[in-house]
Amino acid sequence: MAQKTTLKEFENVFPKLQEVLLEHVKSYKLPQEQLDWYKKSLEVNTLGGKCNRGMSVPDSASLLLGRPLTEDEYFKAATLGWMTELLQAFFLVSDDIMDSSITRRGKPCWYRQEGVGMIAINDAFMLEAAIYTLLKKYFRDHPSYLELIELFHEVTFQTEIGQLCDLLTAPEDVVNLDNFSMEKYQFIVIYKTAYYSFYLPVALALHQLNIATPKNLKAAEAILIPLGEYFQIQDDYLDNFGLPEHIGKIGTDIMDNKCSWLVNQALSIATPEQRKVLEDNYGHKNKEKEAAVKKLYDEMQLEKRYQDYEEKRVGEIREMIAQLDESEGLKKGVFEAFLAKIYKRSK
Amino acid sequence: MAQKTTLKEFENVFPKLQEVLLEHVKSYKLPQEQLDWYKKSLEVNTLGGKCNRGMSVPDSASLLLGRPLTEDEYFKAATLGWMTELLQAFFLVSDDIMDSSITRRGKPCWYRQEGVGMIAINDAFMLEAAIYTLLKKYFRDHPSYLELIELFHEVTFQTEIGQLCDLLTAPEDVVNLDNFSMEKYQFIVIYKTAYYSFYLPVALALHQLNIATPKNLKAAEAILIPLGEYFQIQDDYLDNFGLPEHIGKIGTDIMDNKCSWLVNQALSIATPEQRKVLEDNYGHKNKEKEAAVKKLYDEMQLEKRYQDYEEKRVGEIREMIAQLDESEGLKKGVFEAFLAKIYKRSK
Repeated sequence: MAQKTTLKEFENVFPKLQEVLLEHVKSYKLPQEQLDWYKKSLEVNTLGGKCNRGMSVPDSASLLLGRPLTEDEYFKAATLGWMTELLQAFFLVSDDIMDSSITRRGKPCWYRQEGVGMIAINDAFMLEAAIYTLLKKYFRDHPSYLELIELFHEVTFQTEIGQLCDLLTAPEDVVNLDNFSMEKYQFIVIYKTAYYSFYLPVALALHQLNIATPKNLKAAEAILIPLGEYFQIQDDYLDNFGLPEHIGKIGTDIMDNKCSWLVNQALSIATPEQRKVLEDNYGHKNKEKEAAVKKLYDEMQLEKRYQDYEEKRVGEIREMIAQLDESEGLKKGVFEAFLAKIYKRSK
Repeated sequence: MAQKTTLKEFENVFPKLQEVLLEHVKSYKLPQEQLDWYKKSLEVNTLGGKCNRGMSVPDSASLLLGRPLTEDEYFKAATLGWMTELLQAFFLVSDDIMDSSITRRGKPCWYRQEGVGMIAINDAFMLEAAIYTLLKKYFRDHPSYLELIELFHEVTFQTEIGQLCDLLTAPEDVVNLDNFSMEKYQFIVIYKTAYYSFYLPVALALHQLNIATPKNLKAAEAILIPLGEYFQIQDDYLDNFGLPEHIGKIGTDIMDNKCSWLVNQALSIATPEQRKVLEDNYGHKNKEKEAAVKKLYDEMQLEKRYQDYEEKRVGEIREMIAQLDESEGLKKGVFEAFLAKIYKRSK
């Protein structure tokens, strides 16, 4: 999620796409009340985020070309970027219902807003559908049109199986640490997050520029999936060890029974006594129980363990980038930019 | 939804498709528990219906060819048919949540089954995704592969805007007859039901046989959408005037505040006094209030009104079928078969 484009530039593209989407539903003579509803859902659920995923499409395209994008290239790349944001909006609206979440981006979750409720499920579907409407509008004549559709289908499905694994592994209301394992953790992180957040934007940029050769796609995946995994592990680390003033929130993974990297590490090295502490205290909405887990994490030196992991992993990723074959147009700079944004971040 | 194939023949194709779908998730190394969950969701949500929509794909294909299908043709047509059933499963699982439904096909709705809850939302997504997995597996080399994908995208979106209109027009808990109108009724029926139930199966059969010319698709749509509208109006009629021993259930449209053809007809001809009766009694879970509405329907001679509508509409549809241009391979028999199954049905 490397950035050179600005959020403002990227957001400036959205009104045109929204217009296209509204024209599309108008072509079916959707009544006005429903049209207004769809417009609001598009705005509330797609706008207001950091757009890291979306912006990394034009940034990657620019790094691949080794020059700034023309106006048309930028528009096309940002349009693909907004499709990743629509995909994320589809997931967030529905995940919030599945996780009984309360707020999203500082406001009540969409399903908790006045008069919405379970209609949010259908709204999520319509956000997903918007991806294909935009693809058809702007990429129907692109040589990769079919591959772009299939890419979205596959990444959507990968995210769904990641979400299924997460939902069954860490149900909000049933605490059972036997459910957790590093294998499941890795599965969830790779499928629920890494594919759509890291692989998808770069794959889209490659397709836009007609250099999505099998070799390039495979090489991008081989680096971006470990990078995405590292990003999520870091996120889990920051949830407990990060400074609230840096990360902008107070971590709640322990109380929320999250299948986090930290608890999986703790479980993998715990003595029977330490495991008992986890069994007794993990996954309860109780500050004292949370403090007991935090104390255990400190005793187990998980901070150090994370730092060792980070150095090792970043070294491996750097090595993979160094070995990258650029002969078919892929560029090391794309991955270096992602890594630079992530390494040793504190927020 | 005309039929010559049998439910048994059609259902015999499902295990092979299920195997393909399970192999697909296995290729991602989905853990066993999640694999079992997906298998169960596929079975519970896709099987057990009448499969009228699905079976109409092979039946239409056979009528188009004017001969029985070969084994391979039948398998391909039935596979397309199962995709319409998967699309319906995706809608039913999610609609049941949005409508707070209790039972489906005589069993608790999927989201109400033990341990499921809101995970059903993600399961619905995975049912939708299965359509594209099967399309890719069996139709990647078909000349209409891209058109088949786009057809599913479009019909999915049409159903979603129909559902949105339905949800905003007839919320379960707020009774406001001002929301209803014949225009909205028609919109809901056409988009929520007619496209995926009537147009989709025939369009799929046309694509399978490589005769989905723009002219044929347009001609099929022009007949099948009015036919689907008639079917739903008949459904609404039977909900109140049908015999429970024929329709297999006791109609609840009045108590459920449904935006039914009957209430829209009543509203369109009601005197202020009659409208008051509707205002006071429609949309309440109360047998006496329901009886008051039923009495009003009788006074307003809605049964006769329906019969007049049916005769007129069927006459128009017959005329459209008679005028059909068969020069590009479309056959009147396809539509005659649909109409024969619907006209004057009592269940």
